[in-house]
Amino acid sequence: MLSEFDLIQEYFQRPHHASRAILGIGDDCALLSPTPGMQTAISSDMLVEGRHFFAGEDALRLGHKSLAVNLSDLAAMGARPVGFTLALALPSAERDWLAGFSQGLFALADAHNIELIGGDTTKGPLTICITVFGELAPGRALRRGAALPGDDIWISGTLGDARLALAAYRGELAVPLTETEHALAAVRMHTPIPRVALGVALAEAGIAHAAIDISDGLVGDLGHILKRSGVGATLDVDALPPGPVLATRDLALRRAYCAAGGDDYELCFTAPAGARAAILAAGGSTVTPVTRVGTIESRPGLRLVDAHGAALDLGLASFDHFKS
Amino acid sequence: MLSEFDLIQEYFQRPHHASRAILGIGDDCALLSPTPGMQTAISSDMLVEGRHFFAGEDALRLGHKSLAVNLSDLAAMGARPVGFTLALALPSAERDWLAGFSQGLFALADAHNIELIGGDTTKGPLTICITVFGELAPGRALRRGAALPGDDIWISGTLGDARLALAAYRGELAVPLTETEHALAAVRMHTPIPRVALGVALAEAGIAHAAIDISDGLVGDLGHILKRSGVGATLDVDALPPGPVLATRDLALRRAYCAAGGDDYELCFTAPAGARAAILAAGGSTVTPVTRVGTIESRPGLRLVDAHGAALDLGLASFDHFKS
Repeated sequence: MLSEFDLIQEYFQRPHHASRAILGIGDDCALLSPTPGMQTAISSDMLVEGRHFFAGEDALRLGHKSLAVNLSDLAAMGARPVGFTLALALPSAERDWLAGFSQGLFALADAHNIELIGGDTTKGPLTICITVFGELAPGRALRRGAALPGDDIWISGTLGDARLALAAYRGELAVPLTETEHALAAVRMHTPIPRVALGVALAEAGIAHAAIDISDGLVGDLGHILKRSGVGATLDVDALPPGPVLATRDLALRRAYCAAGGDDYELCFTAPAGARAAILAAGGSTVTPVTRVGTIESRPGLRLVDAHGAALDLGLASFDHFKS
Repeated sequence: MLSEFDLIQEYFQRPHHASRAILGIGDDCALLSPTPGMQTAISSDMLVEGRHFFAGEDALRLGHKSLAVNLSDLAAMGARPVGFTLALALPSAERDWLAGFSQGLFALADAHNIELIGGDTTKGPLTICITVFGELAPGRALRRGAALPGDDIWISGTLGDARLALAAYRGELAVPLTETEHALAAVRMHTPIPRVALGVALAEAGIAHAAIDISDGLVGDLGHILKRSGVGATLDVDALPPGPVLATRDLALRRAYCAAGGDDYELCFTAPAGARAAILAAGGSTVTPVTRVGTIESRPGLRLVDAHGAALDLGLASFDHFKS
């Protein structure tokens, strides 16, 4: 039987990398030495079985996704990742599960050159809580409240394939996905790629105003930017870039899943029109597609329009954990 | 019906205090400006219903305890608290529960002049994950691996009353507690007081070597210090200070619950004999009783002795979340 301490030592304690963590796992606290003059960005997300992922979800994918959704918050702030803590409740200490989970977690951590610096393990319903730390220069953060009238609205990558995979799992699709289509879409649902390089490039170059990551659906998440910035917007729904699988579906589904799919983990950000060339360059240098999809306006409210500028009513609602 | 966003706004978002948090709840990340030259101490704890607290536990006490156990980790490092994040899974958004929980949480936060700077709420089995941040000067941390042969072993406050309350709830006591006794002991179990002022005083004065907070029982937690420091110890079990209720019980119960009770949230720390006067002064200035209870030795292993120095075998085991 695997004890709590063996579990941590075997699966989560790694040879000490050269990192900013002076003291990692195994003491009362982890210690970090902040880079002089930099601010610390902090985000915490909790994933619950049956809510954020299916019971029986593959452990490796889950390890990836748990860290990815947190890194996505750093990306939306433009902060460079430094390290993270992990608090984990498990029904039992299963070696296979722990090996897969830690492998998925550390593969993504290594890709961002960050370390697990501390945490907690306990028995309980499968629940994963990661708190991630990043750094950025004062005044560079991409805040939700910084959008200005006249700003372009931009989207990274593509939207909707994660929602399409969920619809397929739920049997909601009139035209089912082929096996290949399902595999492609499922990757977007299970192993999102946080847009850290783009977020950091936008913040460090000082070319974007507001940003948010799209987790609950674009319309809802953009709504947070509008509310906190005290502005409105017109969104060209037909300019939204669908994922490769969603791109083969009919217009109504494309519009609905692009505008309010959820689980996209792309960035939605705003920037002045004069920054267009710089934004395209930042997308190019970080190998991240960026698409211009609308305009911030002083008139309150979010106006959805089609490719011809005609008003669209998609009857959309954003995801709320206590309403659905 | 209370939405996720209303819930955060009503119960967890407070007028922005003057604090080190530049940006608090409501953006993708919180932002902190570390004090120049200071290190950041970080600790994360997860509390699960039915594991760390009874189902139906009073929400106000739970709000207090969730933050207290995290502050206790900062205390054991000697770090001064700065702020914390809260990730919360709830079966449903009940106003009474949220009002009580947030009241207990913020009362303790206010006592330490710290702010909730961010977090996450979701639906799920009641689970509370707090990550707490503190600061301390480089080289001042009270690490588990810093005990030296010849060090005195010290305990703050008193031990065992929390374990006594648990035994009473479980009906394990041969002589039941009176109502008054139960109320006294239960306070120690439900609303532990983290020894932050003492930990900070010890670290800032540079008079202690190693420290840990006693959450799983003294013998087990002291064992972590011994293992990481590569030393042994002799512990005078009869010198351990029992809580006021446990003090009225028989010798065998006093010894067992003082040595391995659990949930005490007192500090166990080591310091050179030359620091005795300074330690007593630190206890005095922070209004925290401190008691000398043993000696660190180069010979490996933990030797339990009675008041006459005779060996004691209490047959104790520390708490392990995956073994019990």
